[in-house]
Amino acid sequence: MWQLFQFPLCPFSRKVRLLLGEKGVGYTLIRENPWERRDEFIDITPAGQTPVMTDEGRDIKLIDSLVICEYLEETVEKAQMINGTAVQRAEIRRLAIWFDTQFFRDVTEPLLGERMLKRIVTKTGPDAKVLRGAMKAAIDYLDYTDYLLDRHNWMAGATLSLADLAAAAQISVADYLGGIDWKNHEATARWYSGMKSRPSFRPLLSERMEGIPPAPHYDDVNF
Amino acid sequence: MWQLFQFPLCPFSRKVRLLLGEKGVGYTLIRENPWERRDEFIDITPAGQTPVMTDEGRDIKLIDSLVICEYLEETVEKAQMINGTAVQRAEIRRLAIWFDTQFFRDVTEPLLGERMLKRIVTKTGPDAKVLRGAMKAAIDYLDYTDYLLDRHNWMAGATLSLADLAAAAQISVADYLGGIDWKNHEATARWYSGMKSRPSFRPLLSERMEGIPPAPHYDDVNF
Repeated sequence: MWQLFQFPLCPFSRKVRLLLGEKGVGYTLIRENPWERRDEFIDITPAGQTPVMTDEGRDIKLIDSLVICEYLEETVEKAQMINGTAVQRAEIRRLAIWFDTQFFRDVTEPLLGERMLKRIVTKTGPDAKVLRGAMKAAIDYLDYTDYLLDRHNWMAGATLSLADLAAAAQISVADYLGGIDWKNHEATARWYSGMKSRPSFRPLLSERMEGIPPAPHYDDVNF
Repeated sequence: MWQLFQFPLCPFSRKVRLLLGEKGVGYTLIRENPWERRDEFIDITPAGQTPVMTDEGRDIKLIDSLVICEYLEETVEKAQMINGTAVQRAEIRRLAIWFDTQFFRDVTEPLLGERMLKRIVTKTGPDAKVLRGAMKAAIDYLDYTDYLLDRHNWMAGATLSLADLAAAAQISVADYLGGIDWKNHEATARWYSGMKSRPSFRPLLSERMEGIPPAPHYDDVNF
């Protein structure tokens, strides 16, 4: 049985959970707060980052969310999420990596820092300027996803792909933390409503991070 | 014909060039300084980062070094670099991504910032404390690669893989900038000497970044 080391607001763990859900692969959750740098976790992964997925029975240890996703694509036939020609597959990977790195760096990471880590670790208030910067960056990103979704139904083309899962993972954490202004982003809002309705997304929507309530509209499919 | 947008000390472009060299794929270099944020380049890639690989004749545009490497693996049979079982492929990707992100963040990026960007862009001297931190971090990373290379001939196992190309790309830039102390790292030094001897590596070793001379031992195979 797979074990996934993660915490509720880890966007990279969310991407893996969405993929596991779409593929119908069972797993158990292990709660891991990477900022605590627990010795046993550092032994598993020197980088100390979630998610990590292990199967002790088969002595398999997978580190890094992109590595886990590629592994699942290669080993589980159901619900292929990196599909199509080599060029289409490149576009799926480009967008997934773009959300994982650029969107994370500019939006999700500063929101997590100000609204989660400061509350849990340093017990200080958020920096309003950093929050404003992250929310302003989110608007630019959603302008671009609007552009993508005006051209086709899903982020990278005509079908659901890893790009949508990566996008939904990042956006859902930013939305939980009140960082997304949905005004004037109809195409992305319609797409996100569809993502929220998927059975793979339900377990994420009902989860809460202790001490950090989500934005009021967070789990509403018709937000 | 492929065109690769890059600059001589971009570690991610070096990884792609090593892979193109191993696979015997021809390409032309387009010099691109991403810090200048040239309009035509931002039009090609909103993220504004090298490398980007294009083939205008076939209307193909590949953005992000990992995307390019996966594309080349899928489309060029020769010199497969993500090989083996799904678990072995996961280990190759884990190490390649680890060099691309962790090693880059802790070693290559601060060295490039202090010894390249400050000289070219801001015309200020390097911060000795940042340099010392990067060089100290490099020692810890090479302790780990020594451990890997004591167990098998190449970073991720018994054969050359994308993990070696990613490692050589990052280490070569750090070494150019004088950031690598080779003392007490015999296993990694032996491996790197072998990498330097490969025909795919030669074009990189002879290139220079204008105004920034490499460390004296940089292009010596028996350093």
